[in-house]
Amino acid sequence: MNSKKEFEDGKKNALQSLEKACHIKKVDDKILPILHLINTSCNYYTSSSCAGRIVVLEIPNIGNKKEAVFLGKWHRTIESKEIKVSVEKANRGLLWLLAQSPIIHIVSDTSGNADVIVKAAISCGFKNSGIRSLGKRVVVEISSTERLDAPIGRDGDLFCNEEYLRLLADICNEVIGKSKEKLHQFERKLHDFL
Amino acid sequence: MNSKKEFEDGKKNALQSLEKACHIKKVDDKILPILHLINTSCNYYTSSSCAGRIVVLEIPNIGNKKEAVFLGKWHRTIESKEIKVSVEKANRGLLWLLAQSPIIHIVSDTSGNADVIVKAAISCGFKNSGIRSLGKRVVVEISSTERLDAPIGRDGDLFCNEEYLRLLADICNEVIGKSKEKLHQFERKLHDFL
Repeated sequence: MNSKKEFEDGKKNALQSLEKACHIKKVDDKILPILHLINTSCNYYTSSSCAGRIVVLEIPNIGNKKEAVFLGKWHRTIESKEIKVSVEKANRGLLWLLAQSPIIHIVSDTSGNADVIVKAAISCGFKNSGIRSLGKRVVVEISSTERLDAPIGRDGDLFCNEEYLRLLADICNEVIGKSKEKLHQFERKLHDFL
Repeated sequence: MNSKKEFEDGKKNALQSLEKACHIKKVDDKILPILHLINTSCNYYTSSSCAGRIVVLEIPNIGNKKEAVFLGKWHRTIESKEIKVSVEKANRGLLWLLAQSPIIHIVSDTSGNADVIVKAAISCGFKNSGIRSLGKRVVVEISSTERLDAPIGRDGDLFCNEEYLRLLADICNEVIGKSKEKLHQFERKLHDFL
């Protein structure tokens, strides 16, 4: 298991990286209070995070994320016309619209504390949370189940009519709304036990 | 942490349930060799599993799985017309087409052994794997990232034309194909270290 010294060094590096990322506005404001709460506890630190987002991807085939191109990326609710505008940059490949709920990676000093924060997250609706690794670093992933992964077109052409595109935008926005709600709930929960 | 006795009792119950489930054909043949491999090891047992499936769901709103109705469910590749036939039974609500990759829940005797099987699964492409609980029972979830979660209609009407529906079926079938591939890879890996 990791020693206290390694944990402290890892935390120092992670906090420096987080500060830099905040400085260049690479961290979503909505998730900052939670990151702050976790990082002020002596048992945990955060290594990466996303508050939830909507993405338009161009991808040669399923699962081949390495060659995927981001045509649009929003950390907020969107309008369907924004999807259309993003697709104007498309070239070749399948077009996917994704709505992704929040994801937070947390390093814990012990497996026991990892289990505590996983259970807290699950109780706030982050049902996909779990311990990813128990090696030198004990790594927890906090994540949820709401999502949309829909192919919406190919080689620059959309399959969906206006009405369908509006519905897809609505569902994406619902994922973003639920994400915000669950993050608030988790923040309150963390206040209780950290 | 769980005692050896509790682990052995849990394993006995789980194996009895599995045998019953196999008897009434509730377990997918494709996943049985892996379950058998895991269950013959003295460090693990399986508590639930799915080899990957394609589903048509009618759902009142996102995330509200409790009120969801299964209109179609296949543990194999499908043709687009099967989606259409399943939707004939629709009533009210949003229609979703889901393709889900395999999921296996494993109870481990120790957290160390849980970490070993999580790392093995991740190396075979089951990138969403992790330890879900370190309480009385150490529970691991083996899962992957390929999936499709697409709304395809509302109140019994499909949004998609024939061509789009064929594409969705193709992508679902790709998820099933990749699932099979990864399960084979995981089976070979388990042979190496169990």
